[in-house]
Amino acid sequence: MPVVLSYRCSTLFSQFDPVMLICHSVNTTQIRNEDSGLIDHPLVIGIAGGTGSGKTTIARQILQRIGTNRIASLSHDAYYRDRPDLTLEERARLNYDHPDSLETELLVEHIKCLKQNTPVDMPVYDFTTHRRKFETIRVEPQTVVLVDGILIFENKKLRNLFDVKIYVDTDADIRFIRRLQRDIEERGRTQESVVNQYLETVRPMHLKFVEPSKRYADVIIPEGGFNRVALDMVTAHIAEMLHLE
Amino acid sequence: MPVVLSYRCSTLFSQFDPVMLICHSVNTTQIRNEDSGLIDHPLVIGIAGGTGSGKTTIARQILQRIGTNRIASLSHDAYYRDRPDLTLEERARLNYDHPDSLETELLVEHIKCLKQNTPVDMPVYDFTTHRRKFETIRVEPQTVVLVDGILIFENKKLRNLFDVKIYVDTDADIRFIRRLQRDIEERGRTQESVVNQYLETVRPMHLKFVEPSKRYADVIIPEGGFNRVALDMVTAHIAEMLHLE
Repeated sequence: MPVVLSYRCSTLFSQFDPVMLICHSVNTTQIRNEDSGLIDHPLVIGIAGGTGSGKTTIARQILQRIGTNRIASLSHDAYYRDRPDLTLEERARLNYDHPDSLETELLVEHIKCLKQNTPVDMPVYDFTTHRRKFETIRVEPQTVVLVDGILIFENKKLRNLFDVKIYVDTDADIRFIRRLQRDIEERGRTQESVVNQYLETVRPMHLKFVEPSKRYADVIIPEGGFNRVALDMVTAHIAEMLHLE
Repeated sequence: MPVVLSYRCSTLFSQFDPVMLICHSVNTTQIRNEDSGLIDHPLVIGIAGGTGSGKTTIARQILQRIGTNRIASLSHDAYYRDRPDLTLEERARLNYDHPDSLETELLVEHIKCLKQNTPVDMPVYDFTTHRRKFETIRVEPQTVVLVDGILIFENKKLRNLFDVKIYVDTDADIRFIRRLQRDIEERGRTQESVVNQYLETVRPMHLKFVEPSKRYADVIIPEGGFNRVALDMVTAHIAEMLHLE
């Protein structure tokens, strides 16, 4: 996939190290965190859960509580494959809820880069044109790497990178209502198109790939972002692992 | 139920305070915890989950990690109703997996006592004779009150007493295997009687009362006592709430 290479970074490091080919070209020994000095072992936390489960709210609240300066945040959503070989119409018909629609191998390599104290350039996906944008977002290594996405526990290579696996579990009707509202308000979709996509791909793929991946979670949080006790528990654990006060 | 009164405690306090009728007769202002001084607001943690889910292992590990000197531990199992009016045969035929078989109102009052810094005398149940024993176990107030049982989130009055509600969720086949082994080894039961009881009452009551109570949990822990990450999370949260190092 040569088109992807432009989103990967420099090859100043060893040409033979596949991770270094993708990581950004910064001398890893010089990367330090203001709070903790050199980051030896970043804590990698995965937050999964179906569409509308509230995982983004959980992720946002962890960011607020632990501090954005301590967290490198990656979203699996940003890693949808770019398909410039297809027309807009063909791209719109793709099944975006199937694991194959995501360039998970790139996310895996990016997490490995961050674990090695090397910044990465996270892709940016445009949901209206179904294309990856030219610009990227620079993500610097931090003491915590937070990754969210509906399918992050489905892929074994990705799953094995997490130190803590959290699954946000919310009833399907509530999840659908949230998705309906979000897609109409934020993505300019019609009710009919949201319902059709939900019944045709979102729901079957949820049952086939997302729901079964729950069994790999270390902890399951019911009702997403409105669960204060669970959020307290997660942030207490992160703070303890980071030896924060 | 006059027979129960013997397991409740002194009436030295106000005869008109129903909680004080059940709590043990110790002047609450004199009860202090060595570490934290007077216990103003004990943290009440509930651990629920089906038979064989691993909740006792979780509870035991929390006790070990936080320290038994900081935790008052109550088990809903100890509160099976005493039925001296029935014969052994009649008692053996009772449905011990239905919420009505438990004297939940006494557990509720005992938790309220501990929250008021008053010791309680927890009943002791004999599973071979299906009778409550004459002796009781004195439980002193502590900074944490830990309560476990399959049905503790089913009863609203009991559920509302918990600051943290943990549900240990383990696949039904694994739970059955654990119960089979435990009942044969520890309770001298036969395989046939375990299977019959499981199919006749344990399983239907689980589906009717235990499984639906999962939705009240703040956090769901898959795979019980073998889940180190979840256990780290729970103990970090307790330690934080107790301001432990």
